[in-house]
Amino acid sequence: MDFAGKRIVITGGAGLIGSAIARRLVQMDADVTVIDALLPQYGGNRRNLQEVADRIKLIVSDVRDPACLDGLLDGIDILFNLAGQSSHLDSMKDPITDLDINSRAQIGILEALRHVNPRAKILFASTRQVYGRPVYLPVDEAHRVHPVDVNGINKLAGEWFHRLYHEVYGMRTCVFRLTNTYGPGMRIVDARQTFLGVWIRRVLSGEPFEIWGGAQLRDFNYVEDVADACLAAALSERADGRIFNLGSPEVVNLRQLGEMLVEINGSGSFETREFPEERRRIDIGDCYCNFAAIEAALGWRPRVSLRTGLQRTLEYYRHNMEHYV
Amino acid sequence: MDFAGKRIVITGGAGLIGSAIARRLVQMDADVTVIDALLPQYGGNRRNLQEVADRIKLIVSDVRDPACLDGLLDGIDILFNLAGQSSHLDSMKDPITDLDINSRAQIGILEALRHVNPRAKILFASTRQVYGRPVYLPVDEAHRVHPVDVNGINKLAGEWFHRLYHEVYGMRTCVFRLTNTYGPGMRIVDARQTFLGVWIRRVLSGEPFEIWGGAQLRDFNYVEDVADACLAAALSERADGRIFNLGSPEVVNLRQLGEMLVEINGSGSFETREFPEERRRIDIGDCYCNFAAIEAALGWRPRVSLRTGLQRTLEYYRHNMEHYV
Repeated sequence: MDFAGKRIVITGGAGLIGSAIARRLVQMDADVTVIDALLPQYGGNRRNLQEVADRIKLIVSDVRDPACLDGLLDGIDILFNLAGQSSHLDSMKDPITDLDINSRAQIGILEALRHVNPRAKILFASTRQVYGRPVYLPVDEAHRVHPVDVNGINKLAGEWFHRLYHEVYGMRTCVFRLTNTYGPGMRIVDARQTFLGVWIRRVLSGEPFEIWGGAQLRDFNYVEDVADACLAAALSERADGRIFNLGSPEVVNLRQLGEMLVEINGSGSFETREFPEERRRIDIGDCYCNFAAIEAALGWRPRVSLRTGLQRTLEYYRHNMEHYV
Repeated sequence: MDFAGKRIVITGGAGLIGSAIARRLVQMDADVTVIDALLPQYGGNRRNLQEVADRIKLIVSDVRDPACLDGLLDGIDILFNLAGQSSHLDSMKDPITDLDINSRAQIGILEALRHVNPRAKILFASTRQVYGRPVYLPVDEAHRVHPVDVNGINKLAGEWFHRLYHEVYGMRTCVFRLTNTYGPGMRIVDARQTFLGVWIRRVLSGEPFEIWGGAQLRDFNYVEDVADACLAAALSERADGRIFNLGSPEVVNLRQLGEMLVEINGSGSFETREFPEERRRIDIGDCYCNFAAIEAALGWRPRVSLRTGLQRTLEYYRHNMEHYV
């Protein structure tokens, strides 16, 4: 992949996926600007960019502020548009904030690009949460959408603005519907990004973690696989105007995942409990994703097994925990 | 229908549908509060409430202001939630304003009701625009949604917030997907509400009107039929949590509609022309709606024929034009 000299902006670039992309792009001599609000309740963390800090430009700014992007989009080649609010529960408790980040700010970003740089490539990170409770599995992109929380509605609006700006203005937008993404750099202090973060922190701390339910089937993508997909889509015209699921052929239930985590760590324990009421009401049951469309278009499929990914992640936090709690 | 003594708030209550509901409710001795921003580019017009002005409370306020509803929702029985931005073209030119009214303000309204009055009935006016270009006709509620403009995306988000607050909190929300609604009180100064308004103004003024395309099939609902549906849904528990199309069994193409209008008026002419480019990109082709679901649930079907409705509308504007231009 040839990113040398390309001018690239990554919103949410201090987060799990954004920082993985930034590190890879720096290795390939791209010109990288990261925008991240570094708000304590979201996924951005300076530690994620430590090894490339002197080779990128980091702008601490919030995409909700229309002026945030002023002067940054002129002449760029690619925007990785990854800043988002991802907590389902937070979206129910503070729906306006979720809307402002996941939906309203997206219009600001697309309008800014449309006016100054309509030929840039834009990759938007959406979520398989837009499908709600699946009516068949694995879920493909033709599955009906039926969000079951405020976050799902706003993410769907956000991705549809991207689709629309392709259909109406011919802009080169591409949307990924991400499944659970994990790896070094993930939020582990709480479950706002994924429950798996809390599990990892607790198992490393010698504390039992909780599994809500346990029988739910899920798939997981290791962050470097997701970065691969983002980079491939960014360079390919075959991704323009498309909406792609990511996903994994490895499907496990949460109890199996918990057991694997304990086994890899060499110690640990968990308790299973019923869903708390506020969480049960927005739960989606089993969900895993068909990624045949992106495989056909871009040749992408995940390469890192769940076991290997968890090993790497545990290893990372064994040495870096203090920067994430 | 028994609305006597019921406390009712109508947002957008000076508009075409809201004012028709307000007039009917006053006849039935309901306690009616109308909230309308009366902004010049939208549908609100004081003239629409003239005959009930001394029997309702009119509050000139904007639903985008979170304080707009303070103190107004305590103890109400029904909220007719009709304030909206309806122009497809305006939504493309000023997408943030469209979002703030059609999507963001809806969260404010639902959150306010959830906190102070979660048992109130809420009827939300959405649009068949959420279906985009139909893949089959007539469009029913199971038809896939695929908005083709910013307005459609934001209206869909707005209606889904209503659906979600029913599913998660048990609130008594009901959504109507309206087709073209017309009648006395409609906006005729421009095409922001429907193109038919401009046609009516021009044919009454002795000027030719323009038909863009002409072969597109559409259905139309007379405003009093729509008010009937709103009132029926407001009183019925069978409407709670539902999304209903309105629609009409009378389907005409735009050229036939133009000919009917000229014939009823007794004079007039039109020119057909190609779609302007900015309008063509968001056009949906043929669209008319299956209303079997609301007929089954509430016994509603339109009673006023297109010919009768157009006669009444022309008659109204023949005598009231000055208040609408």
